[in-house]
Amino acid sequence: MPHITLNSADPGIRGLLRYRPETARPMGELTEVLLRGPSTLTRGERELIGAYVSALNGCQYCTSSHSASAAAQLPGGMALVEQVRADPAAAPVTAKLKALLAIAAAVQQGGSAVTAEHVESARAEGATDLEIHDTVLIAALFCMFNRYVDGLATIAPDDPAVYAAGAQRIVAHGYVPPPDPGRDG
Amino acid sequence: MPHITLNSADPGIRGLLRYRPETARPMGELTEVLLRGPSTLTRGERELIGAYVSALNGCQYCTSSHSASAAAQLPGGMALVEQVRADPAAAPVTAKLKALLAIAAAVQQGGSAVTAEHVESARAEGATDLEIHDTVLIAALFCMFNRYVDGLATIAPDDPAVYAAGAQRIVAHGYVPPPDPGRDG
Repeated sequence: MPHITLNSADPGIRGLLRYRPETARPMGELTEVLLRGPSTLTRGERELIGAYVSALNGCQYCTSSHSASAAAQLPGGMALVEQVRADPAAAPVTAKLKALLAIAAAVQQGGSAVTAEHVESARAEGATDLEIHDTVLIAALFCMFNRYVDGLATIAPDDPAVYAAGAQRIVAHGYVPPPDPGRDG
Repeated sequence: MPHITLNSADPGIRGLLRYRPETARPMGELTEVLLRGPSTLTRGERELIGAYVSALNGCQYCTSSHSASAAAQLPGGMALVEQVRADPAAAPVTAKLKALLAIAAAVQQGGSAVTAEHVESARAEGATDLEIHDTVLIAALFCMFNRYVDGLATIAPDDPAVYAAGAQRIVAHGYVPPPDPGRDG
């Protein structure tokens, strides 16, 4: 049961976004730019970074929802996502993505855990400064979301179909929700 | 030296915001709503939560800048900020703020570290659901900012005057910067 009384039964971050639309809007816009805006990293790769960090933080809702979004947008599907979450170094992803995932794992530990060696390794595999920047910020963003979602003890459904349906909505419509029709009704 | 080549010599997050304006804008808006928007927590109290979490995360730039912003907006000034950072339970702040600072410290550890007892204690001291929500999200926000700033190894000036000047800018103008005149020039 959530620590506070929400104004809907929506699970996970969805209930929090509905509770506080003033903070929901800029968070949605930030997520849209980072995970779906123009980038040389694919949307699937960026969702994968978010799912991986969420798993490291032990956040069930975010891990499930962003694993579903990554799986929906990566050729390897959920099998690949689960391989990455279990052991990114051994997963069948590019060497560049492995190096970026290592940076993300360091960010999850704390900002100063990211070393010059992490960054050199990523650059040696072809990562650009902007890709390194965005990887650090995506990992940091999920350190925020995971704490927000679990810090208020929101509900995480068990049914994978819930997350698969959410992923389809994200793929189709993105992270900036349309205006709530209830506001005009 | 920062891990990536920035487009300015601006220290800390300021250099990152200038490097990536697409993410800077929603981050500024989120910060403005949470730290300066309408709230039953004062601006000084909210900056104090940010400074405290930044200190727990060991982020020198964010600790210094938000300590300066808190000090500029709290009757107790920097002496109070330093007392809170050293030992919030013993600092001369309200029992409600102490309870909210304890929630923030739990969020810094991880979302699931926030217990029903933390929340009950805050509520017993008069904290509302919205204050509890915003405290969790402010603490989570700083877990993002601290990782962003240190994960890219940005520069943290030693001179307190730099942070005091920044605080005056924030107090006067807030976190949503005016359009960059360089873009039109």
